[in-house]
Amino acid sequence: MKAVVLEDKGKISLRDFDLDDQMTADDVRIKPVAVGICGSDVHYYKEGNIGNFIVKEPMILGHEASGVVTEVGANVKHLSVGDRVCMEPGIPNFKSTETLQGMYNLDPDVAFWATPPIHGCLRESVVHPGSLTFKLPDNVSFHEGALVEPVAIGMHSANKAEISSGDTALVMGAGTIGIVTALAAEASGCSKVFIADIKKEKLDFVKKHYSARVTAIDLKSQAIKDVLTASDVDLVDIVFEASGSPKAFEGIADYVKPGGTIVLIGMPSGPVPLDIVSLQAKELNIKTIFRYVNIYPRVINLISSGKLNVKPLVTSTYNFKDAVKAMEYAATLPNDEIKIMIDTDF
Amino acid sequence: MKAVVLEDKGKISLRDFDLDDQMTADDVRIKPVAVGICGSDVHYYKEGNIGNFIVKEPMILGHEASGVVTEVGANVKHLSVGDRVCMEPGIPNFKSTETLQGMYNLDPDVAFWATPPIHGCLRESVVHPGSLTFKLPDNVSFHEGALVEPVAIGMHSANKAEISSGDTALVMGAGTIGIVTALAAEASGCSKVFIADIKKEKLDFVKKHYSARVTAIDLKSQAIKDVLTASDVDLVDIVFEASGSPKAFEGIADYVKPGGTIVLIGMPSGPVPLDIVSLQAKELNIKTIFRYVNIYPRVINLISSGKLNVKPLVTSTYNFKDAVKAMEYAATLPNDEIKIMIDTDF
Amino acid sequence: MKAVVLEDKGKISLRDFDLDDQMTADDVRIKPVAVGICGSDVHYYKEGNIGNFIVKEPMILGHEASGVVTEVGANVKHLSVGDRVCMEPGIPNFKSTETLQGMYNLDPDVAFWATPPIHGCLRESVVHPGSLTFKLPDNVSFHEGALVEPVAIGMHSANKAEISSGDTALVMGAGTIGIVTALAAEASGCSKVFIADIKKEKLDFVKKHYSARVTAIDLKSQAIKDVLTASDVDLVDIVFEASGSPKAFEGIADYVKPGGTIVLIGMPSGPVPLDIVSLQAKELNIKTIFRYVNIYPRVINLISSGKLNVKPLVTSTYNFKDAVKAMEYAATLPNDEIKIMIDTDF
Amino acid sequence: MKAVVLEDKGKISLRDFDLDDQMTADDVRIKPVAVGICGSDVHYYKEGNIGNFIVKEPMILGHEASGVVTEVGANVKHLSVGDRVCMEPGIPNFKSTETLQGMYNLDPDVAFWATPPIHGCLRESVVHPGSLTFKLPDNVSFHEGALVEPVAIGMHSANKAEISSGDTALVMGAGTIGIVTALAAEASGCSKVFIADIKKEKLDFVKKHYSARVTAIDLKSQAIKDVLTASDVDLVDIVFEASGSPKAFEGIADYVKPGGTIVLIGMPSGPVPLDIVSLQAKELNIKTIFRYVNIYPRVINLISSGKLNVKPLVTSTYNFKDAVKAMEYAATLPNDEIKIMIDTDF
Repeated sequence: MKAVVLEDKGKISLRDFDLDDQMTADDVRIKPVAVGICGSDVHYYKEGNIGNFIVKEPMILGHEASGVVTEVGANVKHLSVGDRVCMEPGIPNFKSTETLQGMYNLDPDVAFWATPPIHGCLRESVVHPGSLTFKLPDNVSFHEGALVEPVAIGMHSANKAEISSGDTALVMGAGTIGIVTALAAEASGCSKVFIADIKKEKLDFVKKHYSARVTAIDLKSQAIKDVLTASDVDLVDIVFEASGSPKAFEGIADYVKPGGTIVLIGMPSGPVPLDIVSLQAKELNIKTIFRYVNIYPRVINLISSGKLNVKPLVTSTYNFKDAVKAMEYAATLPNDEIKIMIDTDF
Repeated sequence: MKAVVLEDKGKISLRDFDLDDQMTADDVRIKPVAVGICGSDVHYYKEGNIGNFIVKEPMILGHEASGVVTEVGANVKHLSVGDRVCMEPGIPNFKSTETLQGMYNLDPDVAFWATPPIHGCLRESVVHPGSLTFKLPDNVSFHEGALVEPVAIGMHSANKAEISSGDTALVMGAGTIGIVTALAAEASGCSKVFIADIKKEKLDFVKKHYSARVTAIDLKSQAIKDVLTASDVDLVDIVFEASGSPKAFEGIADYVKPGGTIVLIGMPSGPVPLDIVSLQAKELNIKTIFRYVNIYPRVINLISSGKLNVKPLVTSTYNFKDAVKAMEYAATLPNDEIKIMIDTDF
Repeated sequence: MKAVVLEDKGKISLRDFDLDDQMTADDVRIKPVAVGICGSDVHYYKEGNIGNFIVKEPMILGHEASGVVTEVGANVKHLSVGDRVCMEPGIPNFKSTETLQGMYNLDPDVAFWATPPIHGCLRESVVHPGSLTFKLPDNVSFHEGALVEPVAIGMHSANKAEISSGDTALVMGAGTIGIVTALAAEASGCSKVFIADIKKEKLDFVKKHYSARVTAIDLKSQAIKDVLTASDVDLVDIVFEASGSPKAFEGIADYVKPGGTIVLIGMPSGPVPLDIVSLQAKELNIKTIFRYVNIYPRVINLISSGKLNVKPLVTSTYNFKDAVKAMEYAATLPNDEIKIMIDTDF
Repeated sequence: MKAVVLEDKGKISLRDFDLDDQMTADDVRIKPVAVGICGSDVHYYKEGNIGNFIVKEPMILGHEASGVVTEVGANVKHLSVGDRVCMEPGIPNFKSTETLQGMYNLDPDVAFWATPPIHGCLRESVVHPGSLTFKLPDNVSFHEGALVEPVAIGMHSANKAEISSGDTALVMGAGTIGIVTALAAEASGCSKVFIADIKKEKLDFVKKHYSARVTAIDLKSQAIKDVLTASDVDLVDIVFEASGSPKAFEGIADYVKPGGTIVLIGMPSGPVPLDIVSLQAKELNIKTIFRYVNIYPRVINLISSGKLNVKPLVTSTYNFKDAVKAMEYAATLPNDEIKIMIDTDF
């Protein structure tokens, strides 16, 4: 079948690829329709690895996907051929200790699309466990379906924060994950959400599409404290650190209420100096997240209900036949793009 | 000062009433501006008691109130004369075990406005602890400020339910408390909220003002299961029982997901037969609530942010001089009223 | 193979039974060594059903078991032939929504040993998922291994109660489940545990073996309140209802602190009248439990560490060849027995 | 009255000290009987400050205390003259936001004994809020009563960790706080607790008094991983960091299960480099603690019940008249002392 293949660091082809995709009775076969490009796709393309995950063999890219069911295993009761669906890209060992404890995202044996050596979904068909394949309501588009994956990270972060209705939140970093985290926090009951960054294009995007719900803070010209005060907020209940920048950790406790929470989403490239006594003085909690778990149906419902407006996030669209071009463009890290989507035409 | 006094069961006067209202350094003095009539006011008026709380002496009514600060104690730093505020009507022993544990609503010594023998706030001025008096943002009206009290019950119920974003909820009973609970559940991240009742006027009110967010179920003509299914909901995560009717408990577990939650808000007049095995088969949790705690600032923020639209709840308004008439009208329990508000003119 | 077969209501045989016990790569084969008799075994024997679970075909009994591994599937890494193990008797659909959410006990498709039509383990060998088979430390005997199953119910109840160290607890009902719940509550950090019953033999058993840790209350001669007061306990943090008797629910809220918890373990035979307002006045939470989940390793560790002393619970032992006699004896419901154990000799 | 006064950095006197100790109706007057010396007393003595808390005026030392009630305010119902008690040394503003939310330890206005400019309790009498004064059961000695304060820190840490029965824990640092945390974790249901340090005397103390419950790890000769493995523990559920040493943070995530918790108790003197990605890969939670809250009655009950054996912790005793000598000795930081106790003789 045709597939978008990362041959090696720096080299992508759109070509035929042989795969032995056997179905079990628990699986469905799906024709992908929309696939978003993730920062990890770009990173594997540019660097050939992410930490210890190293591209050693040609690997199909793509893991943010929606599609149409083309075949249904005998044990799968909730799906039919023709159903519009989106797919959760991490397949755990269903009998592991972590899975049985409800945290299958932490199963060390998870097989995650487009993470070496597991193939991704930028191809003509994928076989996937029915239990990780979710039907899209009529009012949720394929693009929105493909966006469920990145939004799931923001929603998992919001869930981890155990938001109480009326909380206030500050998101550090207005990249794609920062933005979806802000939207998730807002949809989860926060009365005020702030998002801080230094990149003008990101802040402009927030102001253009989400100003009714989210307040952008330009770190080049504004102090976080000043913006909070101007909004009648003394301290926030939750900080979401979505920048991965060590600078974001400086004085981070100063923004949080006693007993508050800091969620660490961004992944700094090395150890970060942390002022522990400042956390203790307010008895702050730090939560960390790894991908997401049991969250796809919630995200789909929130998009369908109108509480999560993710449509503006798709800022460019390419056809599958131009996927290599799309990836090359994405590799330039254009600041005015949030999500680049690839539409298939199988 | 002038006050609305429940002289005895069935007898209310608007008259002068002598009160020795001394301020301490921790208190403020407030001139009430808007006071809502609560079902409890009506109940004391018609019955002379609620359970063991018996009207033995003339008692001033009213506990849902907003107003203007007229005097500020030396220790109160967050308020100034002229501030628009609303007031939390239950004053606990601040040094009790329950208060120190963060559940001052459960302090057995709580003094609650208009609960015998404690006077309410339908009068020219009240002295109140600064820590239970909350400033209203400019965009929150006095009527909205007075509504914070009943809305707080719904919001406390939603908090108790520990809603996760994307949950679905069913509210049994579309009285005032049922409606504010539905609104609170929606503002707390529920993707779908259903509210069931037999009273046409209540359901019509929901449909008229909140249909974008809440689905009304007419129990006279619809089965709950059918409405859920028609909305692509199999089972809900949370049931809020706000009717107090024993009938609402029949088969209640059938609507809830395994591991789900039932919050009991309505107060049945006697013991209710409960099918415990049906709860156990799904390992359901039951939470109960008593008033609210630490919730006023959250409700105010949510109203101010636009997430809680409570304005439609005020369905009639009376002047203070007509307060007796207002109470007599409220005592007829008109189905097309949600909240009757008394505006003062001191 | 030889098996203890419930042929029909009232009729048990020890006889050869043909079973097609195929292993998958995820399974192990185990030779049972000790099997406890449960109230459910007795109930199926005497009544032919429990609720909707009806014995329609001959069914092998037994689900509280330890044994020795005789064969290991290729995917099972934590077990070897010869390992001493105990087995969790409920096998869920590992890909169900409930399982993925960490509550596989609530999966509606769970296949539970000796619950019609699933065969139990009173036989020469069983094939079982490796992930539900747990190695016993050297200092945990086969009898203790077989006791893990009933103790798991108590421990799951204690976990649900979210005990904080220094809590006090009251257990209603001193049957086997009541006793293991009291032991679990004590091992989980309760500083004082009370257990109330009307049966002298049960209370005598507690006094004989556990008086250092658990206070027995004889409901025939003592009022619960009086015993609490005599122990300098005003109210308890948690009530575990393990009797299933409607009488135990009368005034149950009177024993619990504001904000406290009631865990419902016992299964009443019909609806129970519940005074909801008494629960609300203290904002009590009710938790229910269904079997247990992710608890076997914890119980094994606590037995091994000496924190759970379950040895006294085995009050009678029979050989496998006398299993029918054992079951008939158990069916007389002797008050002075806690757990009757069957030792195999394969 | 006579008092142990820190005159200035490096200078302590036992002398008469004038205090205007007025009682309110909510207070009791207490004659201290036993007062432990805390590391903070020593630190103020040696350094004249802890962070921004600077000794500018003569200050009475001591905050770990038990005593006898000599006078009772009219509103205090649970105490009588002659009662043996211990006292919680931090007095919050009872009407602050933090106090009303159940976290009075985080109230910024808390007045804590022997923290400048608040006087401690090494004096002939103290006036204290009744609600922070707790009666000791007959079987809890004055020494044990004075130990409740440091043990409260360990118990608060254990509570924060939300231990489930059967968890395993690793404590980094075997100073007094490390040891009481290990004891608290064990009393809270941990099946295995490890404690690691480099100081031989501390480890020997643990081995001598608590080897049945706690496993000492000598970091000079043992690798933590090796000791865990030898105890059949792969990873622990909880790490309590009680050393404050940056070295303890290196590779700390390697010891913890996916989804596990790290509680930060020790206070490093500067920022500590933290490998955040290693925390995220397992989705670990970090909790921090500040003193304790609502924990005294729990500690007292656990000591009384025998679950917490704190008696060995008192390793030296001085008379009040030798208090200066005791403080000078404590200032040498002798490794073989755990808690030095001062007995009064008023």
